[in-house]
Amino acid sequence: MKDKKFVESYYRVLYADTDQAGVMYYANYLKVFELGRAEFMRVLGFTYKELEEKEGIILPVVETYIKYKAPARYDELITVKTTLKEVKSFKIVFEYQICYNHSILAYGFTKHVPVNKEGKIVRLPEALLEVLKEVL
Amino acid sequence: MKDKKFVESYYRVLYADTDQAGVMYYANYLKVFELGRAEFMRVLGFTYKELEEKEGIILPVVETYIKYKAPARYDELITVKTTLKEVKSFKIVFEYQICYNHSILAYGFTKHVPVNKEGKIVRLPEALLEVLKEVL
Amino acid sequence: MKDKKFVESYYRVLYADTDQAGVMYYANYLKVFELGRAEFMRVLGFTYKELEEKEGIILPVVETYIKYKAPARYDELITVKTTLKEVKSFKIVFEYQICYNHSILAYGFTKHVPVNKEGKIVRLPEALLEVLKEVL
Amino acid sequence: MKDKKFVESYYRVLYADTDQAGVMYYANYLKVFELGRAEFMRVLGFTYKELEEKEGIILPVVETYIKYKAPARYDELITVKTTLKEVKSFKIVFEYQICYNHSILAYGFTKHVPVNKEGKIVRLPEALLEVLKEVL
Repeated sequence: MKDKKFVESYYRVLYADTDQAGVMYYANYLKVFELGRAEFMRVLGFTYKELEEKEGIILPVVETYIKYKAPARYDELITVKTTLKEVKSFKIVFEYQICYNHSILAYGFTKHVPVNKEGKIVRLPEALLEVLKEVL
Repeated sequence: MKDKKFVESYYRVLYADTDQAGVMYYANYLKVFELGRAEFMRVLGFTYKELEEKEGIILPVVETYIKYKAPARYDELITVKTTLKEVKSFKIVFEYQICYNHSILAYGFTKHVPVNKEGKIVRLPEALLEVLKEVL
Repeated sequence: MKDKKFVESYYRVLYADTDQAGVMYYANYLKVFELGRAEFMRVLGFTYKELEEKEGIILPVVETYIKYKAPARYDELITVKTTLKEVKSFKIVFEYQICYNHSILAYGFTKHVPVNKEGKIVRLPEALLEVLKEVL
Repeated sequence: MKDKKFVESYYRVLYADTDQAGVMYYANYLKVFELGRAEFMRVLGFTYKELEEKEGIILPVVETYIKYKAPARYDELITVKTTLKEVKSFKIVFEYQICYNHSILAYGFTKHVPVNKEGKIVRLPEALLEVLKEVL
Protein backbone atom coordinates (compact mmCIF):
# COMPACT_ATOMS: atom_id res chain seq x y z
CA MET A 1 0.00 0.00 0.00
CA LYS A 2 3.06 2.23 -0.02
CA ASP A 3 2.85 5.53 -1.86
CA LYS A 4 -0.80 4.97 -2.57
CA LYS A 5 -3.61 7.24 -1.60
CA PHE A 6 -5.77 5.47 0.88
CA VAL A 7 -8.88 6.21 2.89
CA GLU A 8 -9.25 5.18 6.51
CA SER A 9 -12.62 4.16 7.94
CA TYR A 10 -13.55 2.82 11.33
CA TYR A 11 -15.75 0.02 12.52
CA ARG A 12 -16.65 -1.00 16.07
CA VAL A 13 -16.88 -4.81 16.27
CA LEU A 14 -20.35 -5.79 17.51
CA TYR A 15 -21.28 -8.85 19.54
CA ALA A 16 -23.24 -9.75 16.40
CA ASP A 17 -19.97 -9.97 14.48
CA THR A 18 -18.29 -12.42 16.85
CA ASP A 19 -18.58 -16.19 16.89
CA GLN A 20 -18.15 -18.71 19.68
CA ALA A 21 -14.38 -18.73 19.22
CA GLY A 22 -14.52 -15.20 20.67
CA VAL A 23 -13.40 -13.43 17.50
CA MET A 24 -14.97 -11.70 14.50
CA TYR A 25 -16.45 -14.38 12.21
CA TYR A 26 -14.39 -14.72 9.03
CA ALA A 27 -17.18 -13.63 6.64
CA ASN A 28 -17.67 -10.34 8.47
CA TYR A 29 -14.35 -8.97 7.26
CA LEU A 30 -16.06 -8.67 3.88
CA LYS A 31 -18.61 -6.31 5.44
CA VAL A 32 -15.77 -4.17 6.70
CA PHE A 33 -14.23 -4.24 3.20
CA GLU A 34 -17.60 -3.03 1.90
CA LEU A 35 -17.56 -0.18 4.40
CA GLY A 36 -14.02 0.67 3.30
CA ARG A 37 -14.73 0.93 -0.40
CA ALA A 38 -17.97 2.88 0.18
CA GLU A 39 -16.04 5.46 2.20
CA PHE A 40 -13.24 5.48 -0.39
CA MET A 41 -15.75 6.42 -3.07
CA ARG A 42 -17.48 8.95 -0.82
CA VAL A 43 -14.18 10.75 -0.22
CA LEU A 44 -13.77 11.05 -4.00
CA GLY A 45 -17.19 12.63 -4.25
CA PHE A 46 -19.09 9.60 -5.47
CA THR A 47 -21.36 7.20 -3.63
CA TYR A 48 -22.44 3.69 -4.48
CA LYS A 49 -25.97 4.82 -3.79
CA GLU A 50 -25.85 7.53 -6.46
CA LEU A 51 -24.06 5.27 -8.90
CA GLU A 52 -26.92 2.83 -8.49
CA GLU A 53 -29.79 5.30 -8.44
CA LYS A 54 -28.60 7.90 -10.96
CA GLU A 55 -26.47 5.85 -13.34
CA GLY A 56 -28.22 2.53 -12.92
CA ILE A 57 -24.86 0.88 -12.37
CA ILE A 58 -23.89 -1.56 -9.66
CA LEU A 59 -20.46 -3.00 -8.94
CA PRO A 60 -20.85 -6.69 -8.05
CA VAL A 61 -17.80 -8.44 -6.67
CA VAL A 62 -16.40 -11.04 -9.04
CA GLU A 63 -13.44 -12.11 -6.94
CA THR A 64 -12.31 -11.69 -3.38
CA TYR A 65 -9.35 -12.75 -1.28
CA ILE A 66 -8.60 -12.39 2.42
CA LYS A 67 -5.50 -13.22 4.43
CA TYR A 68 -6.24 -13.38 8.17
CA LYS A 69 -3.25 -12.72 10.41
CA ALA A 70 -4.76 -12.00 13.81
CA PRO A 71 -8.37 -11.85 15.00
CA ALA A 72 -10.49 -8.76 15.48
CA ARG A 73 -12.32 -8.95 18.79
CA TYR A 74 -15.52 -7.64 20.32
CA ASP A 75 -15.73 -3.91 20.92
CA GLU A 76 -12.45 -3.14 19.18
CA LEU A 77 -12.60 -0.04 17.01
CA ILE A 78 -10.84 -1.42 13.96
CA THR A 79 -9.55 0.58 11.04
CA VAL A 80 -9.91 -0.35 7.40
CA LYS A 81 -7.46 1.28 4.99
CA THR A 82 -8.76 1.14 1.45
CA THR A 83 -6.78 1.82 -1.66
CA LEU A 84 -7.34 1.39 -5.37
CA LYS A 85 -5.12 -1.19 -7.01
CA GLU A 86 -6.40 -1.13 -10.55
CA VAL A 87 -9.09 0.60 -12.54
CA LYS A 88 -10.19 0.13 -16.13
CA SER A 89 -13.38 0.79 -18.04
CA PHE A 90 -14.70 -2.64 -17.07
CA LYS A 91 -12.90 -3.44 -13.85
CA ILE A 92 -12.03 -2.01 -10.43
CA VAL A 93 -9.79 -3.66 -7.87
CA PHE A 94 -9.73 -2.39 -4.29
CA GLU A 95 -7.17 -3.42 -1.69
CA TYR A 96 -7.80 -3.37 2.05
CA GLN A 97 -5.92 -3.60 5.31
CA ILE A 98 -7.81 -4.11 8.54
CA CYS A 99 -5.79 -2.82 11.47
CA TYR A 100 -6.05 -2.52 15.20
CA ASN A 101 -3.58 -0.95 17.53
CA HIS A 102 -0.91 -0.47 14.84
CA SER A 103 -0.91 -4.06 13.66
CA ILE A 104 -2.50 -5.55 10.57
CA LEU A 105 -5.22 -8.07 11.40
CA ALA A 106 -6.15 -8.94 7.84
CA TYR A 107 -5.69 -7.79 4.28
CA GLY A 108 -7.20 -8.63 0.95
CA PHE A 109 -8.79 -7.41 -2.23
CA THR A 110 -12.08 -7.30 -4.09
CA LYS A 111 -12.45 -7.17 -7.87
CA HIS A 112 -15.59 -5.54 -9.31
CA VAL A 113 -17.20 -5.32 -12.71
CA PRO A 114 -19.71 -2.56 -13.54
CA VAL A 115 -23.09 -3.93 -14.66
CA ASN A 116 -26.42 -2.31 -15.43
CA LYS A 117 -29.77 -3.31 -13.94
CA GLU A 118 -30.18 -6.04 -16.54
CA GLY A 119 -26.88 -7.56 -15.44
CA LYS A 120 -25.03 -6.57 -18.60
CA ILE A 121 -21.42 -5.42 -18.25
CA VAL A 122 -21.12 -1.71 -18.99
CA ARG A 123 -18.38 0.91 -18.98
CA LEU A 124 -17.74 2.82 -15.79
CA PRO A 125 -19.07 6.36 -16.13
CA GLU A 126 -16.30 8.56 -17.58
CA ALA A 127 -16.40 11.03 -14.67
CA LEU A 128 -15.86 8.28 -12.12
CA LEU A 129 -13.18 6.63 -14.22
CA GLU A 130 -11.20 9.85 -14.43
CA VAL A 131 -11.34 10.52 -10.72
CA LEU A 132 -10.36 6.95 -9.91
CA LYS A 133 -7.42 7.04 -12.32
CA GLU A 134 -6.17 10.19 -10.66
CA VAL A 135 -5.89 8.53 -7.27
CA LEU A 136 -4.39 5.34 -8.64
CA MET B 1 -50.30 -23.53 19.35
CA LYS B 2 -52.76 -26.21 20.40
CA ASP B 3 -55.18 -27.49 17.80
CA LYS B 4 -53.56 -25.40 15.14
CA LYS B 5 -52.12 -26.65 11.91
CA PHE B 6 -48.42 -26.05 11.98
CA VAL B 7 -45.46 -26.68 9.72
CA GLU B 8 -42.13 -27.91 11.03
CA SER B 9 -38.87 -26.83 9.42
CA TYR B 10 -35.30 -27.52 10.42
CA TYR B 11 -32.20 -25.40 10.68
CA ARG B 12 -28.66 -26.41 11.57
CA VAL B 13 -27.03 -23.66 13.65
CA LEU B 14 -23.86 -22.45 11.92
CA TYR B 15 -20.73 -21.09 13.56
CA ALA B 16 -21.76 -17.89 11.73
CA ASP B 17 -24.91 -17.76 13.86
CA THR B 18 -23.15 -17.96 17.21
CA ASP B 19 -21.62 -15.14 19.21
CA GLN B 20 -18.84 -15.08 21.77
CA ALA B 21 -21.23 -16.13 24.53
CA GLY B 22 -21.28 -19.49 22.74
CA VAL B 23 -24.94 -19.33 21.71
CA MET B 24 -26.97 -18.27 18.70
CA TYR B 25 -26.98 -14.47 18.51
CA TYR B 26 -30.40 -13.09 19.42
CA ALA B 27 -31.10 -11.49 16.02
CA ASN B 28 -30.61 -14.78 14.21
CA TYR B 29 -33.82 -16.25 15.61
CA LEU B 30 -35.58 -13.89 13.22
CA LYS B 31 -33.84 -15.61 10.30
CA VAL B 32 -35.17 -18.92 11.58
CA PHE B 33 -38.64 -17.37 11.84
CA GLU B 34 -38.24 -16.30 8.20
CA LEU B 35 -37.36 -19.85 7.24
CA GLY B 36 -40.41 -21.09 9.15
CA ARG B 37 -42.95 -18.84 7.45
CA ALA B 38 -41.45 -19.46 4.00
CA GLU B 39 -41.86 -23.21 4.50
CA PHE B 40 -45.35 -22.70 5.94
CA MET B 41 -46.38 -20.93 2.75
CA ARG B 42 -44.62 -23.48 0.55
CA VAL B 43 -46.58 -26.32 2.17
CA LEU B 44 -49.79 -24.46 1.29
CA GLY B 45 -48.70 -24.27 -2.32
CA PHE B 46 -47.53 -20.67 -2.31
CA THR B 47 -44.07 -19.21 -2.16
CA TYR B 48 -42.88 -15.77 -1.15
CA LYS B 49 -40.85 -15.74 -4.33
CA GLU B 50 -43.91 -16.20 -6.55
CA LEU B 51 -45.96 -13.76 -4.52
CA GLU B 52 -43.22 -11.20 -5.15
CA GLU B 53 -42.51 -12.03 -8.78
CA LYS B 54 -45.99 -12.85 -10.07
CA GLU B 55 -48.25 -10.71 -7.90
CA GLY B 56 -45.79 -7.91 -7.17
CA ILE B 57 -46.61 -8.22 -3.49
CA ILE B 58 -44.21 -8.38 -0.58
CA LEU B 59 -45.01 -8.95 3.07
CA PRO B 60 -42.82 -6.66 5.17
CA VAL B 61 -42.78 -7.26 8.91
CA VAL B 62 -44.43 -4.47 10.86
CA GLU B 63 -44.06 -5.96 14.32
CA THR B 64 -42.08 -8.75 15.90
CA TYR B 65 -41.71 -10.25 19.34
CA ILE B 66 -39.41 -12.95 20.70
CA LYS B 67 -39.27 -14.60 24.11
CA TYR B 68 -35.94 -16.41 24.64
CA LYS B 69 -36.09 -19.27 27.14
CA ALA B 70 -32.93 -21.25 26.48
CA PRO B 71 -30.12 -20.78 23.97
CA ALA B 72 -29.70 -22.58 20.66
CA ARG B 73 -26.11 -23.74 20.26
CA TYR B 74 -23.67 -24.46 17.46
CA ASP B 75 -24.42 -27.46 15.27
CA GLU B 76 -27.80 -28.16 16.86
CA LEU B 77 -30.47 -29.09 14.35
CA ILE B 78 -33.25 -26.91 15.68
CA THR B 79 -36.91 -27.11 14.71
CA VAL B 80 -39.14 -24.17 14.00
CA LYS B 81 -42.88 -24.81 14.26
CA THR B 82 -44.83 -22.17 12.40
CA THR B 83 -48.51 -21.54 12.67
CA LEU B 84 -50.91 -18.87 11.49
CA LYS B 85 -52.46 -16.81 14.26
CA GLU B 86 -54.47 -14.32 12.29
CA VAL B 87 -55.17 -13.45 8.68
CA LYS B 88 -57.14 -10.62 7.16
CA SER B 89 -57.10 -8.88 3.82
CA PHE B 90 -54.45 -6.48 5.07
CA LYS B 91 -52.68 -8.41 7.80
CA ILE B 92 -51.04 -11.77 8.53
CA VAL B 93 -49.71 -12.85 11.90
CA PHE B 94 -47.45 -15.90 12.17
CA GLU B 95 -46.48 -17.58 15.43
CA TYR B 96 -43.31 -19.59 15.93
CA GLN B 97 -41.75 -22.00 18.38
CA ILE B 98 -38.08 -22.84 18.11
CA CYS B 99 -37.39 -26.21 19.69
CA TYR B 100 -34.51 -28.53 20.31
CA ASN B 101 -34.62 -31.92 21.92
CA HIS B 102 -38.29 -31.62 22.94
CA SER B 103 -37.92 -28.30 24.72
CA ILE B 104 -38.90 -24.84 23.55
CA LEU B 105 -35.90 -22.55 23.18
CA ALA B 106 -37.81 -19.50 22.02
CA TYR B 107 -41.19 -18.41 20.73
CA GLY B 108 -42.62 -15.31 19.18
CA PHE B 109 -44.62 -13.77 16.39
CA THR B 110 -44.29 -11.60 13.30
CA LYS B 111 -47.04 -9.36 11.92
CA HIS B 112 -47.02 -8.60 8.19
CA VAL B 113 -48.81 -6.20 5.91
CA PRO B 114 -49.06 -6.83 2.15
CA VAL B 115 -47.62 -4.00 0.07
CA ASN B 116 -46.97 -3.56 -3.63
CA LYS B 117 -43.69 -2.52 -5.21
CA GLU B 118 -44.48 1.14 -4.63
CA GLY B 119 -44.87 0.45 -0.92
CA LYS B 120 -48.66 0.93 -0.94
CA ILE B 121 -50.73 -1.39 1.25
CA VAL B 122 -52.78 -3.76 -0.89
CA ARG B 123 -55.18 -6.64 -0.32
CA LEU B 124 -53.77 -10.13 -0.10
CA PRO B 125 -54.55 -12.07 -3.30
CA GLU B 126 -57.93 -13.79 -2.85
CA ALA B 127 -56.53 -17.26 -3.58
CA LEU B 128 -53.90 -16.94 -0.88
CA LEU B 129 -56.37 -15.44 1.58
CA GLU B 130 -58.74 -18.38 1.15
CA VAL B 131 -56.07 -20.98 1.64
CA LEU B 132 -54.71 -19.20 4.70
CA LYS B 133 -58.18 -18.88 6.24
CA GLU B 134 -58.70 -22.60 5.81
CA VAL B 135 -55.68 -23.47 7.91
CA LEU B 136 -56.42 -20.87 10.55
CA MET C 1 -38.99 8.51 25.92
CA LYS C 2 -39.91 11.91 27.28
CA ASP C 3 -37.94 13.25 30.23
CA LYS C 4 -35.60 10.30 30.09
CA LYS C 5 -31.89 10.46 29.70
CA PHE C 6 -30.97 8.89 26.43
CA VAL C 7 -27.84 8.23 24.44
CA GLU C 8 -27.66 8.73 20.69
CA SER C 9 -25.51 6.51 18.50
CA TYR C 10 -25.14 6.36 14.76
CA TYR C 11 -25.03 3.56 12.24
CA ARG C 12 -24.47 3.71 8.49
CA VAL C 13 -26.64 1.08 6.77
CA LEU C 14 -24.42 -1.26 4.75
CA TYR C 15 -25.33 -3.09 1.56
CA ALA C 16 -24.85 -6.17 3.78
CA ASP C 17 -27.79 -5.02 5.91
CA THR C 18 -30.25 -4.68 3.06
CA ASP C 19 -32.38 -7.37 1.46
CA GLN C 20 -33.88 -7.70 -1.98
CA ALA C 21 -36.85 -5.54 -1.01
CA GLY C 22 -34.31 -2.68 -0.97
CA VAL C 23 -34.54 -2.05 2.78
CA MET C 24 -32.69 -3.05 5.94
CA TYR C 25 -33.58 -6.68 6.74
CA TYR C 26 -35.84 -6.88 9.79
CA ALA C 27 -33.38 -8.83 11.99
CA ASN C 28 -30.67 -6.22 11.55
CA TYR C 29 -32.53 -3.67 13.67
CA LEU C 30 -31.52 -5.87 16.60
CA LYS C 31 -27.87 -5.28 15.74
CA VAL C 32 -28.53 -1.56 15.85
CA PHE C 33 -30.25 -2.02 19.23
CA GLU C 34 -27.10 -3.83 20.41
CA LEU C 35 -24.98 -0.90 19.27
CA GLY C 36 -27.32 1.45 21.12
CA ARG C 37 -27.14 -0.29 24.49
CA ALA C 38 -23.37 -0.77 24.24
CA GLU C 39 -22.94 2.96 23.72
CA PHE C 40 -25.45 3.72 26.48
CA MET C 41 -23.34 1.70 28.92
CA ARG C 42 -20.10 3.23 27.63
CA VAL C 43 -21.40 6.75 28.27
CA LEU C 44 -22.09 5.70 31.87
CA GLY C 45 -18.51 4.52 32.22
CA PHE C 46 -19.14 0.82 31.84
CA THR C 47 -18.64 -1.47 28.90
CA TYR C 48 -20.14 -4.85 28.11
CA LYS C 49 -16.63 -6.05 27.43
CA GLU C 50 -15.41 -5.21 30.93
CA LEU C 51 -18.56 -6.56 32.53
CA GLU C 52 -17.86 -9.83 30.76
CA GLU C 53 -14.10 -9.95 31.27
CA LYS C 54 -13.76 -8.46 34.75
CA GLU C 55 -17.01 -9.44 36.44
CA GLY C 56 -17.69 -12.61 34.47
CA ILE C 57 -21.22 -11.40 33.81
CA ILE C 58 -23.08 -11.35 30.54
CA LEU C 59 -26.50 -9.88 29.82
CA PRO C 60 -28.38 -12.23 27.51
CA VAL C 61 -31.61 -10.97 26.01
CA VAL C 62 -34.67 -12.78 27.33
CA GLU C 63 -37.29 -10.81 25.45
CA THR C 64 -37.37 -8.42 22.55
CA TYR C 65 -39.98 -6.44 20.67
CA ILE C 66 -39.79 -4.27 17.56
CA LYS C 67 -42.39 -2.09 15.87
CA TYR C 68 -41.36 -1.20 12.31
CA LYS C 69 -42.90 2.01 10.98
CA ALA C 70 -40.78 2.88 7.96
CA PRO C 71 -37.76 1.19 6.40
CA ALA C 72 -34.13 2.12 6.88
CA ARG C 73 -32.36 2.17 3.53
CA TYR C 74 -28.86 1.64 2.18
CA ASP C 75 -26.28 4.26 3.09
CA GLU C 76 -28.56 6.13 5.45
CA LEU C 77 -26.83 7.27 8.61
CA ILE C 78 -29.48 6.24 11.10
CA THR C 79 -29.65 7.25 14.74
CA VAL C 80 -30.49 4.96 17.61
CA LYS C 81 -31.70 6.63 20.79
CA THR C 82 -31.32 4.33 23.76
CA THR C 83 -32.88 4.80 27.13
CA LEU C 84 -33.26 2.69 30.26
CA LYS C 85 -36.82 1.70 31.06
CA GLU C 86 -36.32 -0.46 34.10
CA VAL C 87 -33.48 -1.76 36.20
CA LYS C 88 -33.47 -4.20 39.10
CA SER C 89 -30.88 -6.50 40.61
CA PHE C 90 -31.89 -9.24 38.19
CA LYS C 91 -33.29 -7.38 35.21
CA ILE C 92 -32.55 -4.53 32.81
CA VAL C 93 -34.92 -3.22 30.17
CA PHE C 94 -33.64 -0.91 27.42
CA GLU C 95 -35.84 1.02 25.03
CA TYR C 96 -34.79 2.14 21.58
CA GLN C 97 -35.90 4.45 18.82
CA ILE C 98 -34.29 4.19 15.40
CA CYS C 99 -34.59 7.49 13.55
CA TYR C 100 -33.66 9.01 10.24
CA ASN C 101 -34.21 12.53 9.11
CA HIS C 102 -36.35 13.44 12.15
CA SER C 103 -38.77 10.56 11.79
CA ILE C 104 -38.95 7.35 13.78
CA LEU C 105 -38.33 4.30 11.63
CA ALA C 106 -38.70 1.72 14.38
CA TYR C 107 -38.85 1.37 18.12
CA GLY C 108 -38.73 -1.45 20.60
CA PHE C 109 -37.20 -2.90 23.73
CA THR C 110 -34.89 -5.62 24.97
CA LYS C 111 -35.07 -7.24 28.40
CA HIS C 112 -31.88 -8.68 29.88
CA VAL C 113 -31.01 -10.89 32.81
CA PRO C 114 -27.48 -10.94 34.27
CA VAL C 115 -25.93 -14.41 34.26
CA ASN C 116 -22.48 -15.72 35.10
CA LYS C 117 -20.32 -17.89 32.86
CA GLU C 118 -22.11 -21.02 34.08
CA GLY C 119 -25.40 -19.53 32.98
CA LYS C 120 -26.68 -18.95 36.51
CA ILE C 121 -28.67 -15.78 37.16
CA VAL C 122 -26.69 -13.40 39.35
CA ARG C 123 -27.14 -9.92 40.78
CA LEU C 124 -25.96 -6.98 38.74
CA PRO C 125 -22.74 -5.56 40.24
CA GLU C 126 -23.70 -2.94 42.83
CA ALA C 127 -21.64 -0.18 41.17
CA LEU C 128 -23.40 -0.68 37.84
CA LEU C 129 -26.81 -0.94 39.48
CA GLU C 130 -26.34 2.39 41.26
CA VAL C 131 -25.27 4.21 38.13
CA LEU C 132 -28.13 2.74 36.13
CA LYS C 133 -30.69 3.70 38.78
CA GLU C 134 -29.44 7.25 38.71
CA VAL C 135 -30.18 7.65 35.01
CA LEU C 136 -33.54 5.92 35.24
CA MET D 1 -12.40 -31.22 -8.39
CA LYS D 2 -12.04 -34.17 -10.74
CA ASP D 3 -11.37 -37.58 -9.23
CA LYS D 4 -11.67 -36.19 -5.73
CA LYS D 5 -14.03 -37.39 -3.10
CA PHE D 6 -16.47 -34.65 -2.37
CA VAL D 7 -19.46 -34.09 -0.13
CA GLU D 8 -22.59 -32.33 -1.31
CA SER D 9 -24.64 -30.20 1.05
CA TYR D 10 -27.65 -28.02 0.40
CA TYR D 11 -28.66 -24.55 1.45
CA ARG D 12 -31.88 -22.67 0.78
CA VAL D 13 -31.10 -18.97 0.20
CA LEU D 14 -33.01 -16.85 2.72
CA TYR D 15 -34.31 -13.33 2.24
CA ALA D 16 -31.79 -12.55 5.01
CA ASP D 17 -28.97 -13.60 2.67
CA THR D 18 -29.96 -11.30 -0.19
CA ASP D 19 -29.06 -7.67 -0.67
CA GLN D 20 -30.77 -4.87 -2.55
CA ALA D 21 -29.19 -5.98 -5.82
CA GLY D 22 -31.54 -8.98 -5.54
CA VAL D 23 -28.78 -11.56 -5.09
CA MET D 24 -27.01 -13.33 -2.23
CA TYR D 25 -24.63 -10.84 -0.56
CA TYR D 26 -21.02 -11.70 -1.35
CA ALA D 27 -19.98 -12.41 2.26
CA ASN D 28 -22.70 -15.02 2.69
CA TYR D 29 -20.96 -17.46 0.34
CA LEU D 30 -18.49 -17.92 3.20
CA LYS D 31 -21.32 -19.14 5.41
CA VAL D 32 -22.20 -21.69 2.76
CA PHE D 33 -18.53 -22.73 2.63
CA GLU D 34 -18.69 -23.20 6.42
CA LEU D 35 -21.74 -25.42 6.01
CA GLY D 36 -19.89 -27.39 3.34
CA ARG D 37 -16.80 -28.15 5.40
CA ALA D 38 -18.85 -29.00 8.50
CA GLU D 39 -20.81 -31.57 6.50
CA PHE D 40 -17.60 -32.85 4.88
CA MET D 41 -16.17 -33.56 8.34
CA ARG D 42 -19.44 -35.04 9.58
CA VAL D 43 -19.48 -37.53 6.70
CA LEU D 44 -15.99 -38.64 7.76
CA GLY D 45 -17.24 -39.25 11.27
CA PHE D 46 -15.89 -36.09 12.87
CA THR D 47 -17.60 -32.87 13.80
CA TYR D 48 -16.21 -29.43 14.42
CA LYS D 49 -18.21 -29.39 17.62
CA GLU D 50 -16.48 -32.50 18.99
CA LEU D 51 -13.08 -31.33 17.81
CA GLU D 52 -13.66 -28.15 19.79
CA GLU D 53 -15.27 -29.69 22.87
CA LYS D 54 -13.30 -32.93 23.20
CA GLU D 55 -9.93 -32.05 21.73
CA GLY D 56 -9.95 -28.36 22.54
CA ILE D 57 -8.96 -27.61 18.96
CA ILE D 58 -10.46 -25.07 16.62
CA LEU D 59 -9.68 -24.52 12.96
CA PRO D 60 -9.61 -20.79 12.27
CA VAL D 61 -9.47 -19.68 8.66
CA VAL D 62 -6.15 -18.06 7.74
CA GLU D 63 -6.86 -17.47 4.07
CA THR D 64 -9.89 -17.49 1.82
CA TYR D 65 -10.61 -16.92 -1.83
CA ILE D 66 -13.85 -16.74 -3.79
CA LYS D 67 -14.51 -16.42 -7.50
CA TYR D 68 -18.10 -15.35 -8.21
CA LYS D 69 -19.41 -16.37 -11.63
CA ALA D 70 -23.18 -15.99 -11.34
CA PRO D 71 -25.40 -14.90 -8.46
CA ALA D 72 -27.34 -17.15 -6.11
CA ARG D 73 -30.87 -15.84 -5.68
CA TYR D 74 -33.60 -15.91 -3.06
CA ASP D 75 -35.23 -19.25 -2.37
CA GLU D 76 -32.85 -21.20 -4.58
CA LEU D 77 -31.77 -24.50 -3.06
CA ILE D 78 -28.06 -24.25 -3.83
CA THR D 79 -25.54 -27.06 -3.56
CA VAL D 80 -22.09 -26.77 -2.08
CA LYS D 81 -19.59 -29.44 -3.14
CA THR D 82 -16.73 -29.63 -0.70
CA THR D 83 -13.45 -31.41 -1.24
CA LEU D 84 -10.13 -31.56 0.54
CA LYS D 85 -7.25 -30.05 -1.38
CA GLU D 86 -4.43 -30.43 1.09
CA VAL D 87 -3.90 -31.71 4.60
CA LYS D 88 -0.83 -31.63 6.81
CA SER D 89 -0.26 -31.75 10.55
CA PHE D 90 -0.60 -27.99 10.74
CA LYS D 91 -2.77 -27.10 7.76
CA ILE D 92 -6.01 -28.04 6.01
CA VAL D 93 -7.21 -26.60 2.71
CA PHE D 94 -10.81 -27.14 1.61
CA GLU D 95 -12.13 -26.37 -1.86
CA TYR D 96 -15.74 -25.53 -2.64
CA GLN D 97 -18.07 -25.21 -5.59
CA ILE D 98 -21.46 -23.58 -5.14
CA CYS D 99 -23.86 -24.80 -7.80
CA TYR D 100 -27.44 -24.32 -8.86
CA ASN D 101 -29.25 -26.02 -11.65
CA HIS D 102 -26.09 -27.71 -13.01
CA SER D 103 -24.05 -24.55 -13.27
CA ILE D 104 -21.30 -23.30 -10.99
CA LEU D 105 -22.20 -20.03 -9.30
CA ALA D 106 -18.99 -19.62 -7.33
CA TYR D 107 -15.92 -21.51 -6.24
CA GLY D 108 -13.11 -20.95 -3.81
CA PHE D 109 -11.02 -22.27 -0.97
CA THR D 110 -10.36 -21.82 2.74
CA LYS D 111 -7.08 -22.59 4.48
CA HIS D 112 -7.17 -23.52 8.16
CA VAL D 113 -4.62 -23.93 10.91
CA PRO D 114 -5.38 -26.00 14.03
CA VAL D 115 -5.01 -24.01 17.26
CA ASN D 116 -5.78 -24.77 20.88
CA LYS D 117 -7.88 -22.62 23.20
CA GLU D 118 -4.87 -20.42 23.99
CA GLY D 119 -4.47 -19.69 20.30
CA LYS D 120 -1.28 -21.74 19.94
CA ILE D 121 -0.82 -23.73 16.75
CA VAL D 122 -1.06 -27.46 17.46
CA ARG D 123 -0.94 -30.68 15.46
CA LEU D 124 -4.17 -32.05 14.09
CA PRO D 125 -5.27 -35.09 16.11
CA GLU D 126 -3.70 -38.19 14.53
CA ALA D 127 -7.04 -39.95 14.04
CA LEU D 128 -8.46 -37.02 12.10
CA LEU D 129 -5.27 -36.60 10.09
CA GLU D 130 -5.36 -40.22 8.98
CA VAL D 131 -8.96 -40.11 7.89
CA LEU D 132 -8.43 -36.85 6.02
CA LYS D 133 -5.35 -38.20 4.22
CA GLU D 134 -7.34 -41.20 3.07
CA VAL D 135 -9.90 -39.06 1.28
CA LEU D 136 -7.32 -36.74 -0.21
